[in-house]
Amino acid sequence: MSPRDAARAARTASRQTQSLTTRDRVGALERMADALDTQASRILQANRLDVEAAGKEVEAGLMTQSMAARLKLTEAKLQTLAQGIRALARMEEPIGRVLKRVELADGLNLRQESAPLGVVLIVFESRPDVLPQLIGLALRSGNGLLLKGGKEALNSNRVLHEVITEAISPLPATLFSLVESRSEVAQLLDLDDVIDLVVPRGSNAMVKHIQQNTRIPVLGHADGICHVYVDKGAAPALAQRLVLDAKTDYPAACNAMETLLLHRDYPHSVELIAALQEAGVRLYGDTHAQAAFGLSPAESFSVEYGDLEATVCVVDGIDEAVEHIHRFGSGHTDCVVTEDPLVSEAFLTRVDSACVFHNASTRFADGFRFGLGAEVGISTSRIHARGPVGVEGLMTTRWKLVGEGHTVAPFSRGDAQFTHRLLS
Amino acid sequence: MSPRDAARAARTASRQTQSLTTRDRVGALERMADALDTQASRILQANRLDVEAAGKEVEAGLMTQSMAARLKLTEAKLQTLAQGIRALARMEEPIGRVLKRVELADGLNLRQESAPLGVVLIVFESRPDVLPQLIGLALRSGNGLLLKGGKEALNSNRVLHEVITEAISPLPATLFSLVESRSEVAQLLDLDDVIDLVVPRGSNAMVKHIQQNTRIPVLGHADGICHVYVDKGAAPALAQRLVLDAKTDYPAACNAMETLLLHRDYPHSVELIAALQEAGVRLYGDTHAQAAFGLSPAESFSVEYGDLEATVCVVDGIDEAVEHIHRFGSGHTDCVVTEDPLVSEAFLTRVDSACVFHNASTRFADGFRFGLGAEVGISTSRIHARGPVGVEGLMTTRWKLVGEGHTVAPFSRGDAQFTHRLLS
Repeated sequence: MSPRDAARAARTASRQTQSLTTRDRVGALERMADALDTQASRILQANRLDVEAAGKEVEAGLMTQSMAARLKLTEAKLQTLAQGIRALARMEEPIGRVLKRVELADGLNLRQESAPLGVVLIVFESRPDVLPQLIGLALRSGNGLLLKGGKEALNSNRVLHEVITEAISPLPATLFSLVESRSEVAQLLDLDDVIDLVVPRGSNAMVKHIQQNTRIPVLGHADGICHVYVDKGAAPALAQRLVLDAKTDYPAACNAMETLLLHRDYPHSVELIAALQEAGVRLYGDTHAQAAFGLSPAESFSVEYGDLEATVCVVDGIDEAVEHIHRFGSGHTDCVVTEDPLVSEAFLTRVDSACVFHNASTRFADGFRFGLGAEVGISTSRIHARGPVGVEGLMTTRWKLVGEGHTVAPFSRGDAQFTHRLLS
Repeated sequence: MSPRDAARAARTASRQTQSLTTRDRVGALERMADALDTQASRILQANRLDVEAAGKEVEAGLMTQSMAARLKLTEAKLQTLAQGIRALARMEEPIGRVLKRVELADGLNLRQESAPLGVVLIVFESRPDVLPQLIGLALRSGNGLLLKGGKEALNSNRVLHEVITEAISPLPATLFSLVESRSEVAQLLDLDDVIDLVVPRGSNAMVKHIQQNTRIPVLGHADGICHVYVDKGAAPALAQRLVLDAKTDYPAACNAMETLLLHRDYPHSVELIAALQEAGVRLYGDTHAQAAFGLSPAESFSVEYGDLEATVCVVDGIDEAVEHIHRFGSGHTDCVVTEDPLVSEAFLTRVDSACVFHNASTRFADGFRFGLGAEVGISTSRIHARGPVGVEGLMTTRWKLVGEGHTVAPFSRGDAQFTHRLLS
């Protein structure tokens, strides 16, 4: 089946799936979770082929150690995945939620309901665990998927796809198509007439490539250049704890701090800089920070190091901090550390990012920590869904109007009047 | 100023505007409405130049009469526009509405708030009244605009833009930039790094061209191929009234009926066909309809006539009706006429269009009739906003997290627990 035909078949299957009962979809999720448990050895056997091939690639210097590590599935990982799917089965029905009800006129009632988006293309690298996670989310929300994994995980993705489509039967197997490597990503990105959304799960370079090469809306983020602004009025112990957590808890994460903005009059800057350096963080500064703390110069203020490195800039106060964030940031997550309510309020009002935090680590910007259940991704786009996105990122809405033979003519003539009474 | 610089300046101005108080933005809207009244003669004088030039183009056969007619402003139109702006001034504040509040952990509180989208490009033809309408919406919602009008309305657009930016002062004039004709639309459509959304207001051809030539998300619809399905269980008088309204009330509208689907066993088909023909509607049929009602053949079942013409197809029942709509429709607005609750429920559940109606004319699919206040447009896209879209189409969200120095490390270690308590 060509990718276009697979997308069309996925839409038909999505329409069938959304017309089923909640019980049908939940039953399929439960069978899927059970299959991840009972078919574990079959899955791990296929995974072993990928892991072995990756081992040879690493030896030959063709793959990084960390990419190979992300490939590996274990019994424990499969159990966690199954638990995640069971949690999805227990969540509130996302389809057909009434978002708004309005009486337009006597006997003419409008409601806006949540509905599945349709067909979503997932492009993912290495991690085969992305596949069951996103299939679970799609099934819960009645969407069709085109899944395009990396060739390094081909055997794992194939067996996972097989196990899952067997398990969800009698739901149509065409709901989730695995697009294999002979169809290039470029071809898929051209299918904007049959695909509603692309969710890239992989490196920044991959996300950026997709964003720049498709007219299909992309849910994701390329850069995570997150700032922590330590105000003059910051409590020193709190500031130090928070900055260290934001930078060192998991430096490769998109929500890790990349730039520390220090108020020029913050009295504990020297200790804070020393604490970061003691934690093994290499620091690069603007002119002020170079002079004040003996740092080497930063090459740019828009760097996502993804490692134990950070930029330090000294600012005059909240105005310059906000300006810096707008100029050099990526609109992902930015934090202010202060005990001054005027400063925190100004920061939360003025910083135009997906997540703005006061006295909390940037590392909290995450679907699970936000309590969204499963995470589709983190979006720095401003349309559709922004920041950490749960199942609502896979939903759209539908307007349903029920009348008693109402026509517009009498309203246009003035013989009938709209009431526009909000019911809920 | 280049279009890119204008977009950047509009973003800065939007950030300033959203940081102001509600009172500031409402005051600017009120001054804008007053200016449309007090500066009416200045506006009409400029408009007369465009109308006169258009008159010559019509004489030379270079412009259609209806396009020239849409150019013309009158004192009454300006008053209606001013009233619309005052209604926007009275509406509930759209910025900073709290959509969700969650306690993540003790002392760590998350909220999701509505926020302006940022910078929106409006591409519009003829009608200069689009300009104040969309400036009003943008001002109310704190967005920046790039306005690209047709050269046929150049004088009108210029004076309206001047009058409005004078009136909103001290709000920055860079909030709304008029992009003049030396910058081509193609250049604007390339600015996906500085423009968040395009709203095309014009012909289907123009909308389609924009959709196919930009990576910026487009809020709009090219086709409006709306269906009315008259079920076996339809009440004949109601069906006739509704079908006539859907087709003849305003045939050029995107929400007018283009295709009539008749249940093969509907006993009043002949009268319904005759009533449409008596109302001056030319009908084209599928094989069944040709034979049953003596219609000439339809060239395609996906035609938007935009005139007193329609396609008639005979179907076996709800299944075939739904399949026909999914195959040939445009996902805009589709209606079922029936007294059978099983059929209406099946139709409302299964038809995957932006608007699905039961016993109500397709012509109700409209922002004003839906009670949304001013309308940004009608979207057949499935992401961001679908169907008639009011000010919420110009909004995004922001997550705000307030803690007391919270770090993720203790949560990862298991020393702290998330509560994820939904507060509202």
